[in-house]
Amino acid sequence: MKRTAYIGQLTESHVGQTVTLQGWVNRRRDLGGLIFLKLRDRSGLVQVQVEPDSPAFPQADQLRAEYVAEIEGTYQLRPEGQRKGGLADFEVIASRVRVLNTAKTPPFELDKGESVAEDIRLKYRYLDLRRPEMQRHLLLRSKAVAAITAFLDTEGFVQVETPMLTKSTPEGARDFLVPSRLNPGEFYALPQSPQLFKQLLMISGMDRYYQLARCFRDEDLRADRQPDFTQLDMELSFVEQDDVLELNERLLSHVFRETLGVELPLPFPRLSYFEAMDQYGSDKPDLRFDSAFEDVTGLFRGGEFAAFASAGCVKVLVAPELTRRQIDELERVAKQNGARGLAWLRREGEGFTGGISKFVGAQTAELLARTGVQDGGTLLFSAGEWKGAVSALGAVRLALRDLFDLTAGGPRFHVAWVMEFPQLDFDPESGTWTYMHHPFTAPHPDDVALFGTERQGEIRAQAYDLVLNGFEVGGGSIRIHDPQVQAQMFGAIGFTPEQAQDKFGFFMDALAYGTPPHGGIAWGFDRLIMVMTGASSIREVIAFPKNNRGADLMALAPSPVEAAQLGEVGLQVQTPERV
Amino acid sequence: MKRTAYIGQLTESHVGQTVTLQGWVNRRRDLGGLIFLKLRDRSGLVQVQVEPDSPAFPQADQLRAEYVAEIEGTYQLRPEGQRKGGLADFEVIASRVRVLNTAKTPPFELDKGESVAEDIRLKYRYLDLRRPEMQRHLLLRSKAVAAITAFLDTEGFVQVETPMLTKSTPEGARDFLVPSRLNPGEFYALPQSPQLFKQLLMISGMDRYYQLARCFRDEDLRADRQPDFTQLDMELSFVEQDDVLELNERLLSHVFRETLGVELPLPFPRLSYFEAMDQYGSDKPDLRFDSAFEDVTGLFRGGEFAAFASAGCVKVLVAPELTRRQIDELERVAKQNGARGLAWLRREGEGFTGGISKFVGAQTAELLARTGVQDGGTLLFSAGEWKGAVSALGAVRLALRDLFDLTAGGPRFHVAWVMEFPQLDFDPESGTWTYMHHPFTAPHPDDVALFGTERQGEIRAQAYDLVLNGFEVGGGSIRIHDPQVQAQMFGAIGFTPEQAQDKFGFFMDALAYGTPPHGGIAWGFDRLIMVMTGASSIREVIAFPKNNRGADLMALAPSPVEAAQLGEVGLQVQTPERV
Repeated sequence: MKRTAYIGQLTESHVGQTVTLQGWVNRRRDLGGLIFLKLRDRSGLVQVQVEPDSPAFPQADQLRAEYVAEIEGTYQLRPEGQRKGGLADFEVIASRVRVLNTAKTPPFELDKGESVAEDIRLKYRYLDLRRPEMQRHLLLRSKAVAAITAFLDTEGFVQVETPMLTKSTPEGARDFLVPSRLNPGEFYALPQSPQLFKQLLMISGMDRYYQLARCFRDEDLRADRQPDFTQLDMELSFVEQDDVLELNERLLSHVFRETLGVELPLPFPRLSYFEAMDQYGSDKPDLRFDSAFEDVTGLFRGGEFAAFASAGCVKVLVAPELTRRQIDELERVAKQNGARGLAWLRREGEGFTGGISKFVGAQTAELLARTGVQDGGTLLFSAGEWKGAVSALGAVRLALRDLFDLTAGGPRFHVAWVMEFPQLDFDPESGTWTYMHHPFTAPHPDDVALFGTERQGEIRAQAYDLVLNGFEVGGGSIRIHDPQVQAQMFGAIGFTPEQAQDKFGFFMDALAYGTPPHGGIAWGFDRLIMVMTGASSIREVIAFPKNNRGADLMALAPSPVEAAQLGEVGLQVQTPERV
Repeated sequence: MKRTAYIGQLTESHVGQTVTLQGWVNRRRDLGGLIFLKLRDRSGLVQVQVEPDSPAFPQADQLRAEYVAEIEGTYQLRPEGQRKGGLADFEVIASRVRVLNTAKTPPFELDKGESVAEDIRLKYRYLDLRRPEMQRHLLLRSKAVAAITAFLDTEGFVQVETPMLTKSTPEGARDFLVPSRLNPGEFYALPQSPQLFKQLLMISGMDRYYQLARCFRDEDLRADRQPDFTQLDMELSFVEQDDVLELNERLLSHVFRETLGVELPLPFPRLSYFEAMDQYGSDKPDLRFDSAFEDVTGLFRGGEFAAFASAGCVKVLVAPELTRRQIDELERVAKQNGARGLAWLRREGEGFTGGISKFVGAQTAELLARTGVQDGGTLLFSAGEWKGAVSALGAVRLALRDLFDLTAGGPRFHVAWVMEFPQLDFDPESGTWTYMHHPFTAPHPDDVALFGTERQGEIRAQAYDLVLNGFEVGGGSIRIHDPQVQAQMFGAIGFTPEQAQDKFGFFMDALAYGTPPHGGIAWGFDRLIMVMTGASSIREVIAFPKNNRGADLMALAPSPVEAAQLGEVGLQVQTPERV
């Protein structure tokens, strides 16, 4: 039972030869007494012709859609009039057909792809995965894993599996719990990330660690979340920020080259968190197109337009000519993102009309000069406190991208680092400070003295995000290795030493036994593959995903279990009254 | 912050050069005003000498055991009288020392290794992992993963991640449950293996799949079990048994070559289940030494020794000269393995003394000839029904191995296939048939007609185990792809179609939509690495294992959780009265 090759591997050198192929009947047509089959395997499709007097005819005549067949025949060029270039110019004249298995009629047409209701596709996922598009996604994902493994192995990384049945880690999301039968009433947590374990591996002297780690977060599932997901997780000892960045740049370009044949320009551009927010209104800006904001705060300060005159920040974004309806739609986006409205101007000749034009007489010349807006083009303004103003305009920038296909002229992929995040985040409601990344992120060494002062909000973290086409596909940091700095950090977020010990006890102990300087990163692997394949959702790059109720519609999980099974782990389902 | 190289990578070419090294202080000695340090990284150890007038001295003088340091100095040959050959002949004369971190005194001496109580080692696992032995285990494991990935990627395998939050699979062990918060009162199961999903991937046309899969079984933990473990899981379409075996032989020898530099002789020998049991009393025989049994059933049949005269099976094993005490110990082993005793004979000249010698006068000459026992040597007998008799003597064979180091002259590694397992197993107590491997294993095509007949116990499965040094390190089978055969199989083990549908519903559905012939295997990856490294337990090749109560002594998992957290998933801990 040996195929000559996968269908997609057949080349002109096979012409005239007898080939054996194995796969599924994608379609059967009967025409003029002949049977025409499209045979499909994971690599492609080929037309098979079975002539009425062929010894293969009786078997071929049994074949229906999705039957499994082995076909032997002569590989040849199709008649001259039927050639269009490419693989479709070839066909197989069958000499032998073996029906390897029958198939019921599929509940949906595979060719219909994503137009089929997703519930149906998920229920019959094994059929949905037969689609060339899904096979391409999973193949690319697999190739990426192999490329990562080969690269990191060569670079001296050790792949280590960290525990799946463990204790809460400090990511702060809700844990999935696993009841213990040997210790009734006690629970393991499924890991939200291997964060503490990878730091422990550095403490253990492993020097360079990586893992494609399954992680679990019991969050309310938004459109594109899964309860479990995959991280490329890595950690390095005796490194500084640039070492981690440089290695990851080489790794990511290796992966793009090996899987897509795409060369990413090196080094990746770096933006500070402030620059990214200030210019693009996002800490994960889509830089396939520019459309940076222009800062016009000073231009309007103290001027006649009250809404801008006293605003902490006024930003302007240049847009093409917009209809009234498009402006309304963009204003809706701005409001959804926290703005009170969306001020606008249309350039007409050397002046402005519409929107707030009656308030900007004095600023006209400078606005024209600084924005370079084309005649007929639109200026969109956002004003208020800095973070709110830029965030709202950032959302408008992305809506413009989708409206005008602004990425069309740009590169297919744009990668950048966003860096220098604040170490601490102030919550005005509770009046408390919390960590921005996680409590083990190292502050910039020049800023350590600011801990505990009123300027601690200015402390920069040695943290970095990897941003691809507007998606955050990775994030990491240099970690604190000095127990004293760790204590300062806990102090800054209001933990007493006892609380720190209580929450992170064994890890705090470990830190004191000779911790090397270290840092690392985790890539959101599902999301990376999604962007690389151009898939519309991470569900399209996961073989058997859950729906947005956390359910596996094929295997029918989760499901109730017998009371006895719960009894073994010392649990019972709460009666409704007690819930 | 750049090291010249790992310590173990320093070569004679570095002699006379300034090198920078980073690592941990393994030991410090002060002698004649000088400081001698052993610096350790994951690759090795090197002696560092700090002279009293060196600018490095003040920093070096702060160093204690397990401090983290960066050391710059001249790499040189030690004085002629102190050389012993190898890396220890070299030393570093420090010119600069940087203390990168301090360390508390470790709670145990790292050099003491496995003589330290395992509870202490597990509690401070990050220190235990600093031992070169543990680093070697994890490095080899990582190299094996990289070798497997590269090999299978080249062979056209697709690495696919299967669900971690899923439904019970048919392995028959107890599931770990995960309560669902979005569906209160319902549960996911952690996968016991990806068995059904890998078969679904074949149905989906993925053709060749692999995964290093974490699996979970909630069993009572024996000495060398873990609640979660790692399988190299693979499945292939359009294959027969020989294809799977041949590929796995090439893969395993690739892994041995890449990690240990060991060449495994190909092809691996194949034994049937019957041969393995009949000759070695085990379905995973240790074949690094021979000591096969001799069958003497016929020789004693109807003879004067009643215990052998009517036995279904009499086997004899040749042993060296044994003391009375050793014989007693071996008898104890035989009895622990179900025998009623252990009959024995000692050869003296051309006759036998001791044990059952007075009953074997008539058989003396033939016993001498057929066993070839040396003068002074011992014959050990096992009699009874076949399976019990050979199993008990198989245990005695392994005890002899350990007593006399019988593997000493043999190969370091011996791999074999054990095959042709029975498809079905009869339970005399309940009077019912069950599956031997799992219910999706394909029967030998010549034996399918025996289903439902009184000879169905003779049906051979297309199943195979990979046996290394007496450990089962892999097992797999060709699967049933014909829904009719699947129905026969369910019938044979007493399932009605309704029960089959109830238990394996979605999978039975899938089987009907065009399933290719397929088969696969799973390697017990932890156990394989244990045997390859010569470790004493799988805990020695897992970074953060559980103890035999299923507890992580470092992270302190499992642990109680807040009632509120349980309430969110609709559960409560049973009050003791209700348990």
